[in-house]
Amino acid sequence: MSKLLIVGTVAFDAIETPFGQTDKILGGAATFIGLAASHFNVNSAIISVVGGDFPKAYLELLKDRQIDISGIEVVEDGKTFFWSGRYHNDMNTRDTLSTELNVLADFDPKVPETFKDADILMLGNLHPDIQMNVLNQMNSKPKLVILDTMNFWMEHSLEELHAILKRTDVVTINDEEARQLTHEYSLVLAARKIQEMGPRFVVIKKGEHGALLFHEDNVFFAPALPLEEVFDPTGAGDTFAGGFAGYLAKTNDISFDNMKNAVIYGSTLASFCVEKFGPERMLELNLDELYVRLQQFKNLTQFEIELS
Amino acid sequence: MSKLLIVGTVAFDAIETPFGQTDKILGGAATFIGLAASHFNVNSAIISVVGGDFPKAYLELLKDRQIDISGIEVVEDGKTFFWSGRYHNDMNTRDTLSTELNVLADFDPKVPETFKDADILMLGNLHPDIQMNVLNQMNSKPKLVILDTMNFWMEHSLEELHAILKRTDVVTINDEEARQLTHEYSLVLAARKIQEMGPRFVVIKKGEHGALLFHEDNVFFAPALPLEEVFDPTGAGDTFAGGFAGYLAKTNDISFDNMKNAVIYGSTLASFCVEKFGPERMLELNLDELYVRLQQFKNLTQFEIELS
Repeated sequence: MSKLLIVGTVAFDAIETPFGQTDKILGGAATFIGLAASHFNVNSAIISVVGGDFPKAYLELLKDRQIDISGIEVVEDGKTFFWSGRYHNDMNTRDTLSTELNVLADFDPKVPETFKDADILMLGNLHPDIQMNVLNQMNSKPKLVILDTMNFWMEHSLEELHAILKRTDVVTINDEEARQLTHEYSLVLAARKIQEMGPRFVVIKKGEHGALLFHEDNVFFAPALPLEEVFDPTGAGDTFAGGFAGYLAKTNDISFDNMKNAVIYGSTLASFCVEKFGPERMLELNLDELYVRLQQFKNLTQFEIELS
Repeated sequence: MSKLLIVGTVAFDAIETPFGQTDKILGGAATFIGLAASHFNVNSAIISVVGGDFPKAYLELLKDRQIDISGIEVVEDGKTFFWSGRYHNDMNTRDTLSTELNVLADFDPKVPETFKDADILMLGNLHPDIQMNVLNQMNSKPKLVILDTMNFWMEHSLEELHAILKRTDVVTINDEEARQLTHEYSLVLAARKIQEMGPRFVVIKKGEHGALLFHEDNVFFAPALPLEEVFDPTGAGDTFAGGFAGYLAKTNDISFDNMKNAVIYGSTLASFCVEKFGPERMLELNLDELYVRLQQFKNLTQFEIELS
């Protein structure tokens, strides 16, 4: 089994949807990535920073999932990163109500000695310089570097983003961001341009419309499972990435064919994530439920056509 | 092999896209449906009406495809139905510049005697009363009635639309129209409500985001093939429906499993349709190209996960 190292936010979220709203609850990209990956019983660690206001119970909850949290720094006199947002009725668009960086503003990531040889490095959405800082602490180039990013860095730190992209194997990015980064409307052309920037594999996330995996001239598509109700989309993209990385870590196989499966596992886990607020559904999920839903994915997409 | 009867418009289109524009060219729902179905060498006929201005060469072109055109009435002193539209840069939205009903305003469809026993009746997008009129001329209920419709009829002829839906087996409808018809945002819930209106099978078309097939508690999804360039989306939905109906007619099997394949064939044909203006690409398409693209669809969607 491979070692998986995750860097990203561990944070508070406050969420409003048409179905209700939450107080400050557990959130953050690394939280969702780590919880998703934990379903594969991988040897994983999270690097992050929280304030003295962050409940010890939340940290214990990650530890209980066999996630190494020695790389999560607690700044006792600081406050934890906080995001709040309100989803529109379509559940696909949202307004950010508040972003308080707090301790994240001075985040100085430290890779634990025992994870400097991690096989898979998952760089969650953060400033590209922080992502680069983590990569530079590794003993040698990891077998696979997976990068998530967002439009904010394209607008404010494009040069730094290009620098880390050059050293990335897999990038996960949403469709609008892929278009913004490449000035191409066609996702096929956008993916090709992103491949030229560095990543051999490009995953374009289309939210409720699924995800595309590009590699060389190959393309694979996984739909999102059609759901009766999307309760809270927060963390779905990170859960996808965590399932993707976790499955690759478990199987220790980064071929394109196995990455297809990783995309399916990521989509399956994301389909659970959106059923309840925050990471609630991910915490109660068991393997039997996961297998039932994988079967639904097969039924949804597999067909039998013999080509003559 | 089953008999396929198609009713719908045979018309002139004038199209503007970011890539160029056309004069009046061959268009109309029944044209695209018939051309798509012709790739399966089915025994098919079109019922429609055109004016004296409609080139005989266009009618010959349909006849050359082994489509029975005895049900296409030519009103010598009338003008052919004409639509023109302009696509936006995203190629997913368009403005209608002009709609001239002309001879379509008094369309009185007549089913040829030899097709009153058709196995599959494809009711292209028209006033629901015209669709009902055609269905009522059949000797007995066809094995499969497929209906296409649009938002205009929901707004202006909802009662008549419900009457024909009650007698429909398969409805094809786009995502926004499905939401409008049912007042449900979730497509899963929308499909369930539409099933309660009559159709046992519901196909929801999502344009570049693919198509969903619902039947009882089953759902199947076919993506649209990711293309480098969409040149002209006109007729893609009708080409999908024609490929779907044509494959079912050829195989004479209306099981859910076979309908999955029909959805894949429909999507494959639609992926060609958008490559050139109007039906141009469909007219030059050969079977070898079709099989190559079917293989691309398999590569795009098929995966190997063993469930323990």
